[in-house]
Amino acid sequence: MYRMMGAMLLSLGIALAAGPKLIAWLRKLHFGQTIYELGPAHQKKQGTPVMGGLMMAAGILAASLICHPACWQGGEDFVIPLLAVSFLSMGVGFADDYIKAVRKQHEGLKPLQKIAGQVVVAAGFSVYCYFHPAVGSKVLVPFLNTEWDLGIWYLPLMTLTVIFIVNSSNLQDGLDGLLGTVSAVGSSAWAMICVVLIALAGAGSSDIPGLNTIGVFALAMAGACIGFLRYNRYPAKIFMGDTGSMLLGGGMAAIALLLRRPFLLLLICFTPVMSSVSVIIQRYYFKLTHGKRIFLMSPIHHHFEKKGYSETQIVSMYAGITLVLGTIAVLSVVAG
Amino acid sequence: MYRMMGAMLLSLGIALAAGPKLIAWLRKLHFGQTIYELGPAHQKKQGTPVMGGLMMAAGILAASLICHPACWQGGEDFVIPLLAVSFLSMGVGFADDYIKAVRKQHEGLKPLQKIAGQVVVAAGFSVYCYFHPAVGSKVLVPFLNTEWDLGIWYLPLMTLTVIFIVNSSNLQDGLDGLLGTVSAVGSSAWAMICVVLIALAGAGSSDIPGLNTIGVFALAMAGACIGFLRYNRYPAKIFMGDTGSMLLGGGMAAIALLLRRPFLLLLICFTPVMSSVSVIIQRYYFKLTHGKRIFLMSPIHHHFEKKGYSETQIVSMYAGITLVLGTIAVLSVVAG
Repeated sequence: MYRMMGAMLLSLGIALAAGPKLIAWLRKLHFGQTIYELGPAHQKKQGTPVMGGLMMAAGILAASLICHPACWQGGEDFVIPLLAVSFLSMGVGFADDYIKAVRKQHEGLKPLQKIAGQVVVAAGFSVYCYFHPAVGSKVLVPFLNTEWDLGIWYLPLMTLTVIFIVNSSNLQDGLDGLLGTVSAVGSSAWAMICVVLIALAGAGSSDIPGLNTIGVFALAMAGACIGFLRYNRYPAKIFMGDTGSMLLGGGMAAIALLLRRPFLLLLICFTPVMSSVSVIIQRYYFKLTHGKRIFLMSPIHHHFEKKGYSETQIVSMYAGITLVLGTIAVLSVVAG
Repeated sequence: MYRMMGAMLLSLGIALAAGPKLIAWLRKLHFGQTIYELGPAHQKKQGTPVMGGLMMAAGILAASLICHPACWQGGEDFVIPLLAVSFLSMGVGFADDYIKAVRKQHEGLKPLQKIAGQVVVAAGFSVYCYFHPAVGSKVLVPFLNTEWDLGIWYLPLMTLTVIFIVNSSNLQDGLDGLLGTVSAVGSSAWAMICVVLIALAGAGSSDIPGLNTIGVFALAMAGACIGFLRYNRYPAKIFMGDTGSMLLGGGMAAIALLLRRPFLLLLICFTPVMSSVSVIIQRYYFKLTHGKRIFLMSPIHHHFEKKGYSETQIVSMYAGITLVLGTIAVLSVVAG
């Protein structure tokens, strides 16, 4: 448990310490945000540095490597796959941010390039899980007290899940402090799930080092988000960019798959998923009705903005939803 | 576990549903806040209804009574003491708010009346815990893996602890959404501690109904806070008043004592305690230096306000601190 505490505090400290230098450095490089012309009235945000995700990446990387138990104890160790999925997802986002920043335009990577990169990461990780003796193709179903063996379908379904969560996370990152706050609460919920599973298993279980590593990684994520929020909460001094949102999305998906609980993503990542779903509904409705819109704007947080809610109100609302659903996710582990 | 989920959702629903009617009713009665003349520039808040705590009280009461396990299973049941401490503490706060509202002045109960009421509640509860076979005078010390038998000293020390936490909670309630947010995170941490203890004990332990009840109560508090925040987040439509802050403080202290973990209040209630401590430091420093101030204003959240932080920034910062320290509190239960 001390490793988990250490990971959270270390990651928090690194993100806090890295903040001012990263902001100054990105400003010097003129890596500022180019605000999308069609968005709500966010023009004043023009020029705010992006790629703040690097701050979180530094915290997560250092804290996970230093605090994960297998360094010291041997045994099951998921630190490499966890870091691989989150950092390779981040790589795609970083490439996108980098091209936008250098070319000073809204278009980054081409959609096909982005998706190709994500497919490689997601499919590779699904194959890893499929063949790993402690994971495999059986997923646990919350509330039904059962597990489903997805067999070979595990590979395409989990590949899609990872891609969906990474992009949902990316879509939700549209208001100051939103994704950081929601991810801080969500990662803490994952860590609590690890703690409960460790408590249920008892000290002798062979699964402990694996669970411990996932808990360490989850709290490294939570700490990094809380540190990053110091600079990202309204009014934001820096944005996480695709760099950060894809890092967090990749991390969330990796944790869910390794814990064999992809369904819990629907609770813990409910608000990012809602962002994606609102975009999909908006597009289909637009096509079906030949031009009508169901939301004033999608993703749905912009709908709330246009309805008159302030950025901080929406962040607080989303955080409350995540706290409730994250708590239910933790409780489901004991119930099922 | 389903009872805990139910308690959180029910309490959330009741607070949300009660909100608009309570606000309209209090406005009709002209039970608005009289803003203290010496405070920071909060004059625009003049007239905002207080006693929003009643909204939370309704949720906590109904959810705890409906969802607590002993209703259905028999066995250890802490629902009466939990409700007694929180609602009697609320009673003192309510009297204070009521007098202020009726007389339209800043002075409510006299300090001596307030303290007398709190001493009765706190001392009564300490005696209850002291003689209860499942609680007693031994407290668990986190991180040291030990317990201390306070013997007869349990009574005065725990009486002071309860009074201190209730008043700290009251002092922290000075910014829109602050105490509600911090208490939502803090109560969820207590609930997680109950879940971990249940997982550690295994299904056969006799302690389970008691832990389950505390978990139900903690999540009823969390749900009520999240529902209340719908109306209390910046810019607030209603304040919780002493009614709400003393209810929450009483609930926090009651949980800590029943779990025999008063030390964890220093982590989970760190920010309310910081509010109290900042007031004490300010006063002593003022006396010692014959008129100098160490903070621009106390409690310390007003210091941050005068330093240029916005209300929402301070709320987000305090919430982050509580999330980190609450997580450490949960981890300490497994470590120690």
